[in-house]
Amino acid sequence: MPKFVYDFAEGNRSMADLLGGKGANLAEMTVMGLPVPPGFTITTEACRAYLATGTAPEGLAEEVGEHLHALERAMGRKLGQVDEPLLVAVRSGARFSMPGMMDTVLDIGLTDDSVAGLAAWSGDERLAWDSYRRLVQMFGTTVLGVDAEHFAGALREAKRAKGVTGDLDLDAADLRELTATFKDVVRGHAGREFPQDPREQLDMAIASVFESWRTERARVYRHAEHIPEDLGTAVNVCAMVFGNLGDDSGTGVAFTRDPATGAPGVYGDYLPNAQGEDVVAGIRNTLPLHRLADLQPRAHEQLMEVMATLEGHYRDLCDIEFTIERRRLWMLQTRVGKRTAAAAFRIADALREEGVIDADEALRRVTEAQLAQLMFPRFGDTGRTPLATGVAASPGAAVGEAVFDSATAVRRAEAGAAVVLVRRETNPDDLDGLIHARGVLTSRGGKTSHAAVVARGLGRTCVCGAESLTIDVEARRFTTADGTVVSEGDVISVDGTAGAVYLGELPVVPSPVADYFEGRRPAEGDDLLRAVDRIITHADRRHRLEVRANADTPEDAGRARGLGATGIGLCRTEHMFLGERRVLVERLVLASGDAARAEALAALLPLQRADFTRIFEEMDGLPVTIRLLDPPLHEFLPDRVELTARVAVAKALGETGAPEDLLRAVDRLHEQNPMLGTRGVRLGLLIPELYDLQVRAIVEAAAARVRAGGTPHVEIMIPLVGDARELEVVAARARRTAADVVRESGVDVPYRIGTMIELPRAAVTAGRIARTAEFFSFGTNDLTQTVWGFSRDDVEGSFFPVYLDEGVFEVSPFETIDREGVGRLIGIAVREGRAARPDLALGVCGEHGGDPASIRFFHEVGLDYVSCSPFRVPVARLEAGRAAVGEAGADTDNR
Amino acid sequence: MPKFVYDFAEGNRSMADLLGGKGANLAEMTVMGLPVPPGFTITTEACRAYLATGTAPEGLAEEVGEHLHALERAMGRKLGQVDEPLLVAVRSGARFSMPGMMDTVLDIGLTDDSVAGLAAWSGDERLAWDSYRRLVQMFGTTVLGVDAEHFAGALREAKRAKGVTGDLDLDAADLRELTATFKDVVRGHAGREFPQDPREQLDMAIASVFESWRTERARVYRHAEHIPEDLGTAVNVCAMVFGNLGDDSGTGVAFTRDPATGAPGVYGDYLPNAQGEDVVAGIRNTLPLHRLADLQPRAHEQLMEVMATLEGHYRDLCDIEFTIERRRLWMLQTRVGKRTAAAAFRIADALREEGVIDADEALRRVTEAQLAQLMFPRFGDTGRTPLATGVAASPGAAVGEAVFDSATAVRRAEAGAAVVLVRRETNPDDLDGLIHARGVLTSRGGKTSHAAVVARGLGRTCVCGAESLTIDVEARRFTTADGTVVSEGDVISVDGTAGAVYLGELPVVPSPVADYFEGRRPAEGDDLLRAVDRIITHADRRHRLEVRANADTPEDAGRARGLGATGIGLCRTEHMFLGERRVLVERLVLASGDAARAEALAALLPLQRADFTRIFEEMDGLPVTIRLLDPPLHEFLPDRVELTARVAVAKALGETGAPEDLLRAVDRLHEQNPMLGTRGVRLGLLIPELYDLQVRAIVEAAAARVRAGGTPHVEIMIPLVGDARELEVVAARARRTAADVVRESGVDVPYRIGTMIELPRAAVTAGRIARTAEFFSFGTNDLTQTVWGFSRDDVEGSFFPVYLDEGVFEVSPFETIDREGVGRLIGIAVREGRAARPDLALGVCGEHGGDPASIRFFHEVGLDYVSCSPFRVPVARLEAGRAAVGEAGADTDNR
Repeated sequence: MPKFVYDFAEGNRSMADLLGGKGANLAEMTVMGLPVPPGFTITTEACRAYLATGTAPEGLAEEVGEHLHALERAMGRKLGQVDEPLLVAVRSGARFSMPGMMDTVLDIGLTDDSVAGLAAWSGDERLAWDSYRRLVQMFGTTVLGVDAEHFAGALREAKRAKGVTGDLDLDAADLRELTATFKDVVRGHAGREFPQDPREQLDMAIASVFESWRTERARVYRHAEHIPEDLGTAVNVCAMVFGNLGDDSGTGVAFTRDPATGAPGVYGDYLPNAQGEDVVAGIRNTLPLHRLADLQPRAHEQLMEVMATLEGHYRDLCDIEFTIERRRLWMLQTRVGKRTAAAAFRIADALREEGVIDADEALRRVTEAQLAQLMFPRFGDTGRTPLATGVAASPGAAVGEAVFDSATAVRRAEAGAAVVLVRRETNPDDLDGLIHARGVLTSRGGKTSHAAVVARGLGRTCVCGAESLTIDVEARRFTTADGTVVSEGDVISVDGTAGAVYLGELPVVPSPVADYFEGRRPAEGDDLLRAVDRIITHADRRHRLEVRANADTPEDAGRARGLGATGIGLCRTEHMFLGERRVLVERLVLASGDAARAEALAALLPLQRADFTRIFEEMDGLPVTIRLLDPPLHEFLPDRVELTARVAVAKALGETGAPEDLLRAVDRLHEQNPMLGTRGVRLGLLIPELYDLQVRAIVEAAAARVRAGGTPHVEIMIPLVGDARELEVVAARARRTAADVVRESGVDVPYRIGTMIELPRAAVTAGRIARTAEFFSFGTNDLTQTVWGFSRDDVEGSFFPVYLDEGVFEVSPFETIDREGVGRLIGIAVREGRAARPDLALGVCGEHGGDPASIRFFHEVGLDYVSCSPFRVPVARLEAGRAAVGEAGADTDNR
Repeated sequence: MPKFVYDFAEGNRSMADLLGGKGANLAEMTVMGLPVPPGFTITTEACRAYLATGTAPEGLAEEVGEHLHALERAMGRKLGQVDEPLLVAVRSGARFSMPGMMDTVLDIGLTDDSVAGLAAWSGDERLAWDSYRRLVQMFGTTVLGVDAEHFAGALREAKRAKGVTGDLDLDAADLRELTATFKDVVRGHAGREFPQDPREQLDMAIASVFESWRTERARVYRHAEHIPEDLGTAVNVCAMVFGNLGDDSGTGVAFTRDPATGAPGVYGDYLPNAQGEDVVAGIRNTLPLHRLADLQPRAHEQLMEVMATLEGHYRDLCDIEFTIERRRLWMLQTRVGKRTAAAAFRIADALREEGVIDADEALRRVTEAQLAQLMFPRFGDTGRTPLATGVAASPGAAVGEAVFDSATAVRRAEAGAAVVLVRRETNPDDLDGLIHARGVLTSRGGKTSHAAVVARGLGRTCVCGAESLTIDVEARRFTTADGTVVSEGDVISVDGTAGAVYLGELPVVPSPVADYFEGRRPAEGDDLLRAVDRIITHADRRHRLEVRANADTPEDAGRARGLGATGIGLCRTEHMFLGERRVLVERLVLASGDAARAEALAALLPLQRADFTRIFEEMDGLPVTIRLLDPPLHEFLPDRVELTARVAVAKALGETGAPEDLLRAVDRLHEQNPMLGTRGVRLGLLIPELYDLQVRAIVEAAAARVRAGGTPHVEIMIPLVGDARELEVVAARARRTAADVVRESGVDVPYRIGTMIELPRAAVTAGRIARTAEFFSFGTNDLTQTVWGFSRDDVEGSFFPVYLDEGVFEVSPFETIDREGVGRLIGIAVREGRAARPDLALGVCGEHGGDPASIRFFHEVGLDYVSCSPFRVPVARLEAGRAAVGEAGADTDNR
């Protein structure tokens, strides 16, 4: 039989899985010799056993009994004895704190008999009856499930009857009467008497804590926070101490540093003559902690010593709860304290400077989420009601005129207006609009919809899937659920961090950390920026993964370099074939003869070359990985549905000149599943002139760079390879084209040819592919799609919600790499690719490159670099460093 | 330096890779002591070296010289010496024989000087000049590349000048003159003199053989037959013997058994006073071989002995070429002889009966392709010109009225007509038409198009991708390339074995072997059927892989059982939701409320139950694996493109009542890539009532079967699982439903729940999935699609031709399993699935289950069964047995 109960003196803080966070820390403090009231902890294992069967596991009651007796012996009093009763508090304490759990029942042990004993011991009859009525009330609501309103109503009635308004205006007699009324409430609504057996009170309270693990609110929270369902909670039983025994008693909460700013110096609140719940309730105004020095100098001094001891021991910000009972200090709780993102950086840096932790530990103490949060501007005003909420798809705060199509976005932006693009959903043709907008708002799609992905890539604020909005693009307006109409030109504010949209202009607070990463050096007194600077610098020193950026334009390339990217890991060329050049590609694809094709190609070459020339300038000396054309054919063709309708209408109306030939061509090239069709290297094999054109443009641009005295590092990347032979054929042709350019230009251009590993087949045949490929870049978006057999365009809105509910995913595999499936294939490819070519360069591009959990995996699996959107580069740098220094200590609960 | 030249006495038949088939067999006969003219073989390695550099490898000329001297010493004559010259024949000989290769140059060594020596030695001046003019002609065309027509023209002119018509009417003087003319032709068209140096003749002929490896015709053949490009050919140089030295000379070809029927007894042709090429040219009528016994009894007797020796030695049918030079027998070639499918079975069985080979070897000696060929009816008349040719997608011979839509096909078929369904391409709505048609003809799509796959599944004859046809469905006719119009009701004949379609009714010869498999026992004297019977029986004895069938209807199930299937490995349920039931599913999918959904489900339940009831009857006692609904949602919805056009037209015409709501719903459910969308288990999780309905129908039908005294073996298969959790959720729900039925019916129904492994993620997480799944069935179609990232619907027509050309595939991965990619994942799943659950049943369904090369892989990887279309069951049984007995000996070239 396992041991279900631990005395506080038997545990320590490493036992949080078994004793919960609160129990483990109470044990730690006890062992440290700090003044903790005696008590014991019932383990999470007991809870799990209880939850599995619905009853307390065999032996638990006996063990609780033994520990209770020990406690009684230590205190020299018995639970609920008539004179000088021992009272206990029962508190829940899971590994992670969460809402919805039963929190605390105080004063267990008070009965009709023992209440007088408490009155005698405390010398305060009012306190005794107030404690008792509170016990009946708390026990009634949390243990017996009586609606709290019944007790609140009785209390109101008592005050009304006496003609007073405050609880403190009720005297001992009133409270005795109220206690009787409360017991009637229990009898009436719980169908039983309030238990007069102290041990029964205790056992019922323990069981209630166990039960509360299963409340809906707790379940929802665990789901959202990815906390496993099967952890269970521990229960702490602790001798009561009283902060409400007069002016020489009191209670408070404190932090060893300021948890909001991270500034040094203790920080806290104190309330004389009160219990902890009075502080929380906020009925009476608390005093700042330093006032305690005047009120109780010795207790204050002792508290300061305890806090210094705790911070030194935990080597981190601690928060504590304490009570002073007749000048005697008692520690009721401590933990490593929650803090804001800014405080996390300042505290970690300060502790390092104080020599408490080393630089690696400081790096472990901050998270990528905290850095990301610091980098976005935010709205200052948070009091307004949003027009709608949706998916917080790309963080930040964007204010601008609502516009309903890309052309208007461009026109208004060029006229100097700030705009927010509002669409039902976006597609590649909206790129120009997205570039020109401050933010984007859609009514459809999730975190991996086109709008979300592109917005994150561009660093634009995005709220998507705001389903309560009805967007009427033709009428240029949208309507909210309550009927508010927002028309083109109306100003809206989009909060991409919270996923909300507001009418009108909310004030925006810019981010100094973003300014820092854009090049502003921290001022002497700016502790936050100095902390960020020192921590990121250490991350850069420690990382093994390089951080490159995905950048398709010279502007993005420049920005990425500024943000610390050491190369471009993915330069997509699709956008170079949209806009006005699209018609040339359409001509190329539909070309019936070689002449027409050659003409289209000749027109495209100088345009392509110019694209690369400027990117090579920006990234001189650093690698630039250019992916040859990847998307399915149909993206360059007119929309088939629309075209069919147009032809049908023209025919129905008897019009001539309907584009029937075009429709036939589009029908011929139509694919049922374009994602699984003629894309990537297939396109390159089918229309080899396309890749010839691109390779020529790249190498010519690089040759020009060399002539200008620069140092281009060109990496040509072939997408969607599934078999070594595909790459062999395309690479051989590319090398011929490059050799032509070298001969023509008389300049030697070093370059490498590699491939995306984005198909399962590429992963399992990576050994053969590596004989030709000089580098691999894992395309984890497509790899996730093919490994799971679903396309992100089609699944997020349909069955992903069900999958998250049913626990198939804890998080979308498009957000964080699926280690078991996709990750396993990446592992195979890394191992076998390196075996075939030891100097093979390995990286990842795609959304996962900027996701912290994924970065950690890429570090572990042995990649050389990740590549992510420019705006994620600082975050990725931080996480790459963190991955290199390993996990933070188990006692750091920073979530 | 490698050895490039082997004397015939230095080799043996196991050296075909190095010496080619012909050279290895000449060596074998030489070593056996059979009368082979002396000679030597230049290796394929020399050829490969030549092809790599374009010149003969270093040392080859010397080695040829040494072996030539040895040959001269053996013969006591020198190559091309003036009196009694040694002449040699140069013959190509690759590992596999192929068209397009330079075949033979005879009489190398004849020059202006040595021709007289040949005349003197043979005593026949005409023979000498005829040989010389033939050498100039053959050498001129094959080695020097002169157009054969120039020589033919000169020959015609010579005969015209003399006023004769036959070559034999030209005398020695005429031929001398013709030789001079031929030399002029060489000079005029090759730009050089016919070489008078015998060694130069020899070296040039050898190089020409090497060069001929690269002719377009040979390349195309190798491609079609999957012969590697880098084998190269050997060259055999052999002393000339003459069959044309008079009536005591002659030449012939012979087989040790009849290669057409397999009947015992030698079989061949003999031509007195002739050379081999005269037999091939067919100018003179040959004599049956037994006549040689009269003409040359001793040579005949010796030949019979040689043939018996050869068959005993090779333990198989041999074919030979021989020449008798002045009563002396010379063996010029032997090989294991090609044979018809019928002969293959008869010979293998006869050799087994004779004790020459054992039953395992007999099984190795026949192929699945031969059995398949024997099972289809064929057209007797082959002389007609086809209307068009296309892809031979599903073999057989179908005659019927052309119909252009499924409704007509059904109507006419039910009226008793035989019909051929003609469509541009087919889709799932054509299923009824396909079922009712004898054959199907399409102008689009390849071997894995919908029409092809379904036709093979149903055993219907199919020619698809007949691109020269213009099919006008609305006008109900098609037009051929030459303008022939075939209208609805016109009778056409579709040859699915050859891929051709004919106008009118061609006579059909039914297949006795198919009759045998359908239940006819072989008659006493029917050697073919007895052979098939004994060999398939042995295969069934030896196989480790069970053979199940894919069958969706009771009719197919019954047929499959008759053909020897030991269960149904895949019963698809999609078709059960098409036709008139489709509207119910549409209602289910679009249902806005629970009531509407429940109503649709209630209507479907009895229909589904009835489907399964009859299948369980047919398969009583054998396993039936039923796959729950798999296809994407949109297959149950109206076509979006058509609907959009309809709404647009109605709006343009100002009509009311356009189905705009329906369009909106269809738009909402539209998926960019339905293959990667809401399918399979996702559908089951999204609309759980659908799978509930199916499970209930299955278990109710099985319960009814048990009540009726039957023994249903029910296997419920969940499609498209990618994660163990998906299966856990669906399986738990299915078990609850099954338990409900068991309780309601009071009958215990044994059943198993398993899953398809058809996603890469399922394969790499198979260990976890096997904790829930009781069986795996590999869905190799989908697995191929996701492993490669292409959909068979979209790629066959677009880039597959290029991929086959570029050598990415040797065969479509949808036809034969891709061992390296898909196969590797299957291997992982087998290993890890079995590790987690040792009694896990493993099978495969989908097209590959009927493909012999794939069956062999499934055997090797350790599956328990394959499942294929009923019509492939006998072939799969044969191949499963063949896989178990291993590869045939290396010398058996049955291709």
